Amino acid sequence: MIDSYQKRCQQRVDACLNTLFKAPLPALERLYKAMHYSVMIGGKRVRPLLVYASCEALEGDLAQADGAACALELIHAYSLVHDDLPAMDDDDLRRGQPTTHKAFDEACAILAGDGLQSLAFETLSRPEHNPQDPALRLHMLQVLAKAAGPAGMVGGQATDLESVGHKLDQTALEQMHRQKTGALIEASVVLGALASAQATQIQLTALRHYAQAIGLAFQVQDDILDVESDTQTLGKTQGADIARDKPTYPALLGLPQAKAYALELRDQALKALEDFGTSADPLRALANYIVERRH
Amino acid sequence: MIDSYQKRCQQRVDACLNTLFKAPLPALERLYKAMHYSVMIGGKRVRPLLVYASCEALEGDLAQADGAACALELIHAYSLVHDDLPAMDDDDLRRGQPTTHKAFDEACAILAGDGLQSLAFETLSRPEHNPQDPALRLHMLQVLAKAAGPAGMVGGQATDLESVGHKLDQTALEQMHRQKTGALIEASVVLGALASAQATQIQLTALRHYAQAIGLAFQVQDDILDVESDTQTLGKTQGADIARDKPTYPALLGLPQAKAYALELRDQALKALEDFGTSADPLRALANYIVERRH
Repeated sequence: MIDSYQKRCQQRVDACLNTLFKAPLPALERLYKAMHYSVMIGGKRVRPLLVYASCEALEGDLAQADGAACALELIHAYSLVHDDLPAMDDDDLRRGQPTTHKAFDEACAILAGDGLQSLAFETLSRPEHNPQDPALRLHMLQVLAKAAGPAGMVGGQATDLESVGHKLDQTALEQMHRQKTGALIEASVVLGALASAQATQIQLTALRHYAQAIGLAFQVQDDILDVESDTQTLGKTQGADIARDKPTYPALLGLPQAKAYALELRDQALKALEDFGTSADPLRALANYIVERRH
Repeated sequence: MIDSYQKRCQQRVDACLNTLFKAPLPALERLYKAMHYSVMIGGKRVRPLLVYASCEALEGDLAQADGAACALELIHAYSLVHDDLPAMDDDDLRRGQPTTHKAFDEACAILAGDGLQSLAFETLSRPEHNPQDPALRLHMLQVLAKAAGPAGMVGGQATDLESVGHKLDQTALEQMHRQKTGALIEASVVLGALASAQATQIQLTALRHYAQAIGLAFQVQDDILDVESDTQTLGKTQGADIARDKPTYPALLGLPQAKAYALELRDQALKALEDFGTSADPLRALANYIVERRH
């Protein structure tokens, strides 16, 4: 069920994303190509899926969530482009394809990432594909800016880089992931709910709890897959995190305990949704998918 | 007159900027320090000055322009951090101080730049220091996102990097500068006017013309100074642009014609303000300052 839902979400957000990369001047074609390339090697569109599934859980109109879905994916794409740079994780491949600085060049990749971030905020500021109420759109923008910024995703990446070669305990590791990947996952769920224009505070709190649980589950499972999968299935170098001496859940807890922890987080996520009806089934299916996926 | 006005604007925006860099977690202290450092070596605060002067030209409340002034400076600071990176202009010094990647490291500089960009949009999205009307704040955010993004500043930087070693004609050079520095200067003036909450379309158009003229004048004068000043006065390596075979106005037009062009642009800027009263005097003084400055 989640496969076909994911495909529908992917097609939906890609149709919207694909309209964003027409260079307004011939001199800008390379930059726009690099941005487009960066977004298109992105892959699974987990964040847009969360936006749509959360909007659907509140029986909102998906046409008003397209802007948020695009904005989240643009932020995610920019973060991957910058994370892959030589000065950062120095990755040549992403999902089996050359990373942006390899397909273009380093300067172009830095600028493409910068441009994608601006484009995310621009996309969310427009009336098209977003809720019509300016106060609501502004609120969504504020949530996204905070989640993407130094107290969120960027801060998590900074902490992650500084943690290489250091021993983090579980609390510190969790704090880092809460920012690095968790902040954007939470923002996806919150923005989807806000886009429905009918989220109550109680519903937003429940959805935040759901998002925090699956965000961590996603990371724990990622660490497990880094140990267990081969390079081909994963689309990146297997064991890369361990090779870099990055702190991981299997290293910290042991592999069986890491797996048990992923399932516990899944259960927490499902529990947070207990007051929602069948409209939240895609969110439930995603929680299950996250801990069952093999790549 | 412009000196004391500049000092007042600088103190005003710095007081507001200085509140933004308190790390919310100990693990984030280095990142926040790098962001703060990047903003504090920034210098003249030309963009905040333009925000305030434009708000004042329309007799607006400066307290509602502080958010825009900060946001513009944050975007400007991030662009300098990324432009100075080894993969870009590879500069070790800015205003006589080590650039961010030298004072910290390259990964930290990339992330500090990324974080500053998010912070700019977050700052403008909040009710504090901004107009209270959400629709107006959203409009300001949209103007800033467009000016900062791939069709604006980022696009100009991409074109500039690609132009090294190429011959650009005056039209192409102007297009590049209109984006690279012009877009943010125009956004400063427009955001200042919008922050007054009482700008008419005619006034906005006049201010846009003013901004476009001083934006180009600023660049022409920068190119002239790159030829004429010594390294110590300039705070960066003299002749750096020519050494890199970057297209400049003196190279394209000859030095005397470049100087005449700067003055002509100044006159255009002053003409655009002819329907404004004495409240626009700071904008007029700035137009004069731009072509008279020695560094």
